Amino acid sequence: MNVTNRLVIVILAGGSGTRLWPRSRQAYPKQFLDFTGQGTMLQETFHRLTPLVPPERILVVTNAQYVDLARRQLPELPADHVIGEPLPRGTAAAVGLGAILAEHVQPGAIMASVHADHLILKPQAFRDALAAAAEVADRGSLVTLGIKPTFAHTGLGYVEQGESLAAAGGQPVFRVVRFVEKPDLATAERFLADGRHSWNSGLFAWRVDRIMDEFARHMPELHAGLSEIAAAFGESDAATTLQRVFPTLPHQTIDYGIMERAEDIAVLPVDIGWTDIGSWATLLEVLDSDGSGNVIRGRGLTVTPDTRNTLIYTAERLVATIGVENLIIIDTNDAVLICPRERAEDVREIVDQLKQGGHDAYLVDAAVHPTTDPEI
Amino acid sequence: MNVTNRLVIVILAGGSGTRLWPRSRQAYPKQFLDFTGQGTMLQETFHRLTPLVPPERILVVTNAQYVDLARRQLPELPADHVIGEPLPRGTAAAVGLGAILAEHVQPGAIMASVHADHLILKPQAFRDALAAAAEVADRGSLVTLGIKPTFAHTGLGYVEQGESLAAAGGQPVFRVVRFVEKPDLATAERFLADGRHSWNSGLFAWRVDRIMDEFARHMPELHAGLSEIAAAFGESDAATTLQRVFPTLPHQTIDYGIMERAEDIAVLPVDIGWTDIGSWATLLEVLDSDGSGNVIRGRGLTVTPDTRNTLIYTAERLVATIGVENLIIIDTNDAVLICPRERAEDVREIVDQLKQGGHDAYLVDAAVHPTTDPEI
Repeated sequence: MNVTNRLVIVILAGGSGTRLWPRSRQAYPKQFLDFTGQGTMLQETFHRLTPLVPPERILVVTNAQYVDLARRQLPELPADHVIGEPLPRGTAAAVGLGAILAEHVQPGAIMASVHADHLILKPQAFRDALAAAAEVADRGSLVTLGIKPTFAHTGLGYVEQGESLAAAGGQPVFRVVRFVEKPDLATAERFLADGRHSWNSGLFAWRVDRIMDEFARHMPELHAGLSEIAAAFGESDAATTLQRVFPTLPHQTIDYGIMERAEDIAVLPVDIGWTDIGSWATLLEVLDSDGSGNVIRGRGLTVTPDTRNTLIYTAERLVATIGVENLIIIDTNDAVLICPRERAEDVREIVDQLKQGGHDAYLVDAAVHPTTDPEI
Repeated sequence: MNVTNRLVIVILAGGSGTRLWPRSRQAYPKQFLDFTGQGTMLQETFHRLTPLVPPERILVVTNAQYVDLARRQLPELPADHVIGEPLPRGTAAAVGLGAILAEHVQPGAIMASVHADHLILKPQAFRDALAAAAEVADRGSLVTLGIKPTFAHTGLGYVEQGESLAAAGGQPVFRVVRFVEKPDLATAERFLADGRHSWNSGLFAWRVDRIMDEFARHMPELHAGLSEIAAAFGESDAATTLQRVFPTLPHQTIDYGIMERAEDIAVLPVDIGWTDIGSWATLLEVLDSDGSGNVIRGRGLTVTPDTRNTLIYTAERLVATIGVENLIIIDTNDAVLICPRERAEDVREIVDQLKQGGHDAYLVDAAVHPTTDPEI
């Protein structure tokens, strides 16, 4: 019995990404942008999955304003597999919407939820991990993929593992003792040393009936709302029901709403080359660089004598540097960002200043996205 | 007798300026650009002179391709006071063309030649120096304004002074012993210490009859050609004569062709806040900065938290920086340059690479010059 035949994967493609300004904008957040030169993050996420499950069992949950964009970027996906949240209500509601849609397209579904804005450098290991997670989920557990930590990361939550459970697909499986919020450095170092903590990747798998039970137990309002939306699927009032009910759902994360409260959670500590693209510095770190350590992307020309360990993206124009090191240079059609790699996290300060100054035009849309929008 | 009544000033406005790329382009070299926010270098040069001499006694010698541009930028100047060299033949020919035109507009002229691409921070001292130079020139000397050195500059030639001559306009005057090519650092330090050397600014003054005599003696071919061109001034074949004769003139600098060979040269060591804008670093040094040491110019928006001692020019777009120091950032419509201030001299390497790569479009014209062309 191959449980992946019942596996439906929900790609969560909401969210923004202000630390990736000036490329990431309200009209084009990071999941719809091409950072690698091999497709947008959403496209890469999709194509990473199709060797495991066909498009008929892939769903995209995003904000209503991005539905058309997601459909344009994924022409292989059935159009009604992209569903738009009328407004953002947090990951619990997004996952819930994915769950009821998964059950609609695949009765008796096992569902996995993945994010459209993560980099996965080992796609086969990722698919193997998802298949194993589906097997564990089929047994009845809620499952999370824990990322084996490679350094004392203080910007992520952690999952603490306890007793060993039956392996799946050759992957060790453990019972989750608890989810831990972002730790301080000393704690993160202890976690790294003890071998019992994984990074909380936000990659989950479960049977739809199981997660709905958890919603009923821990988030009954959400459960009631989702049930009402699900009942309308396939009916003429499906869209209006979603419009009416979704905004009334409680605004909560799946971690706080369910994972930190539920029982029988399993973790698979995996090595899938996972990276949450938090800032430009992450891209400089993980993308392939040239002989000088530079990561250069985009359609514009670059001339870079004596330039080292620098990330350059240029949408269209010529970017010329000489004698610079460890810089981030992001050149879009209406704005250019320049900052040292160690200040990449602070790009949001610029976004804040632009907001305060009333310069919203620079936050909404860069107008032209030559490498990201297949229609342009 | 006020000799400035016979003073005609020739503004030399040829030349390019590759170290000021990407603003300085073949179609818009630096003398036609606004770096200060107060007008283009040519306009500033012109307006610096008009308190001393009226537009009727100001001439502009430039390359033929820039004649229209110069006329547009100086609407106060009679159109026929801008003369175009059919092709560049060096400063001796340019100065010679200025000399015969000066004599044409002002018989018995004393001529001073100045450059359109120099910054002069003390305009009144500059005018006083020119008036004094005219007085010394009227006595029959060739005159050069020497700049009192403020540091051991190795990028300029020097003028060595000898015996004291009669002062003029309260300015000490000396006989020139010799002109010295760009020295090494040890020599420059010695020059700085001995008080007998000035920087060779390339600012000259002389009676037209005197410089024509020098041309006849040291550059007879040039003298013959200039005489032929001068004879046609005011005639119907003036333009065709210039077109025919000028390209045959010897290609030489006024320094090598005349100043290093002539006798009876006087130098006035002056303090006029003179700067040869050699590179972007010079502008960062001499232009007014904000409280963080930043020099920010151009029409675009800038957002610059934690940014220090940085030069930013933005033609139109948003330039956002965070946490950078001692950088040069020049944002034009088709290209952006980023380099540390200490590498500003090396911008020509980028220009060379663009040439070699066949990317001439980035060298010819930036297409839009919102702050420099009054017609746009």
